[in-house]
Amino acid sequence: MIERIESFRRRRPRLLEERVTLAHGAGGKASAALVDAVFVEAFRNPLLEPLCDGAVIDLPGGERLVISTDSFVVQPRTFPGGSIGQLAVHGTANDLAVSGAVPQWISAAFVLEEGFPIAELKQIAADMAAAAAETGVQIVTGDTKVVPKGAADGVFVTTTGVGVIPAGRDLSARSVRPGDKVLLSGSMGDHGMAVMLARGDLAIEADIRSDTASVSPLVESLLAAAPSTRWLRDATRGGVGTVCNELAQACGLGVLLDEEKLPVRPMVAGACELLGIDPLYVANEGKIVAVVAAEETEAAIAALRSHPLGADAAEVGEILEEPAQTVVVRTGFGGTRIVDMLVGDPLPRIC
Amino acid sequence: MIERIESFRRRRPRLLEERVTLAHGAGGKASAALVDAVFVEAFRNPLLEPLCDGAVIDLPGGERLVISTDSFVVQPRTFPGGSIGQLAVHGTANDLAVSGAVPQWISAAFVLEEGFPIAELKQIAADMAAAAAETGVQIVTGDTKVVPKGAADGVFVTTTGVGVIPAGRDLSARSVRPGDKVLLSGSMGDHGMAVMLARGDLAIEADIRSDTASVSPLVESLLAAAPSTRWLRDATRGGVGTVCNELAQACGLGVLLDEEKLPVRPMVAGACELLGIDPLYVANEGKIVAVVAAEETEAAIAALRSHPLGADAAEVGEILEEPAQTVVVRTGFGGTRIVDMLVGDPLPRIC
Repeated sequence: MIERIESFRRRRPRLLEERVTLAHGAGGKASAALVDAVFVEAFRNPLLEPLCDGAVIDLPGGERLVISTDSFVVQPRTFPGGSIGQLAVHGTANDLAVSGAVPQWISAAFVLEEGFPIAELKQIAADMAAAAAETGVQIVTGDTKVVPKGAADGVFVTTTGVGVIPAGRDLSARSVRPGDKVLLSGSMGDHGMAVMLARGDLAIEADIRSDTASVSPLVESLLAAAPSTRWLRDATRGGVGTVCNELAQACGLGVLLDEEKLPVRPMVAGACELLGIDPLYVANEGKIVAVVAAEETEAAIAALRSHPLGADAAEVGEILEEPAQTVVVRTGFGGTRIVDMLVGDPLPRIC
Repeated sequence: MIERIESFRRRRPRLLEERVTLAHGAGGKASAALVDAVFVEAFRNPLLEPLCDGAVIDLPGGERLVISTDSFVVQPRTFPGGSIGQLAVHGTANDLAVSGAVPQWISAAFVLEEGFPIAELKQIAADMAAAAAETGVQIVTGDTKVVPKGAADGVFVTTTGVGVIPAGRDLSARSVRPGDKVLLSGSMGDHGMAVMLARGDLAIEADIRSDTASVSPLVESLLAAAPSTRWLRDATRGGVGTVCNELAQACGLGVLLDEEKLPVRPMVAGACELLGIDPLYVANEGKIVAVVAAEETEAAIAALRSHPLGADAAEVGEILEEPAQTVVVRTGFGGTRIVDMLVGDPLPRIC
């Protein structure tokens, strides 16, 4: 969130509402306005300022730590390809990984509704344990609270991860330069669409599975092959479109995406068309957006494709001097359109 | 929670229920059973084992980190002496402090109910910021999720804290010896009783204020004056009685408490008597239980009393060889009674 805070400071969206709406949790413009007006306003202090670009902490011994937290409220709690337990580990580990950190330790806090089935809770814990083992992180501490029936919707899981950044790594939007290339590690929108269809209230049947996965191995192989990599982000809530907007705002440059190169599975594209949703805004849980130096593009793509999670990795755009702080998509017809941050909330409770 | 896990392994309470009850969140025996049967069972792995006594992590550079997390669901969200925002910072910072760590960084994750007033959210953030400033911690990252109206009760806040243990400090139940003294930094039950009365459904009027506060300065002055201090804990959910049981189980010895020496404010004692609740089980949010070496007892008490939060600090008991893993209270009438962990749930949603 902290890197987001930095960019929000540049183009402060205004919070106009008096009450929280679902859009405030969607990861787009309204979320930005809420975070800015409430949390940045309150928590800002001289000590916070140097930490702005990534919740990265210098320890006296020379280590650098990253701390990241996320609450998971996804509904339904299981869906094709994943569950709230897997998301809770992958989501937080991925936030660390795209900061350049090796995810190491995770805490898990549970708010449980009275009456929640113990068997389902055991399954969630088992999913978390499996995801942690696969990711190479340890779940080291936790907390359990119970609220009366009706005061929560089953279970909410909050995970916080701590990772260590190896010496010499410094990923930052500030290092992004015109001419750099934008890569995407695979197809867009699988997670969001899988969850939406799993809700069963759309008359669409399609075999779409969430892409929830730990991107840490992908990040490590990318950084080994393309050591000048500037910036990474996982494209979760708000999708690739919102993440690229955050990048544009944070680096002050333009991001040009090539629509025809953006990978989308045909089933997801079809469902998006039926629902009138742009896949650029649909959440992913196992995909990274990377800005790499032009001369390392081929090596970077090869490294991503060498991993099963990155088999469909592609160069999808580039960084331009102008239009500053803006994301532009070149369409298949040769025209261009501006892609803003997600504004509404097509997909509440996606993670 | 990890230290608790270690002790639970010794006297494994069995989880008999098929559904989560309010007692599972009360911090006593049922909570222990749930944590043991669900989370320890799932998360146990060779890597977790060495971390058992405190979620303490050795970094390559020689630093030791502590990670602690807590969700806050207190109802009502404001009460005499405090609010959910203050609790969310104090609670997590205190868990770090009693591990011997200097609390440093905190993450904050919010699950908000659609329709929650922005003004109240701003007040919570302001309370958190004030508590963080007073505690000397930085709120470095966060997350916001929104769930539909009815899917949560207003707001739940989860904070995770990371602190650094100075070299040479090693607080552990394993270092506790027969003859050591048990100290309590002040009166019992203020927080739990303040919240209970603030709910307004008891026909009791009393000027009782929560003791919510950062105990870190108290811990630092205690450890400076009594460097052989064995073990510390803040007596939150489950109260002093439950915390002493966890101590007894973890060190394998007996804990003898002297009822007449246990400080309780007259108002709290009166309310407890009217409600039939033992103040030993009522939550505190600014009190520590300390086990100190007998020869450092006087210095320890003087150090605690030198701080406003510890003005009523007292020696309240001692460590005995027998009865093993048991807490015994010597009553005013010269008899003794065994104090078990909290079993039921007199006080749901206390933090």
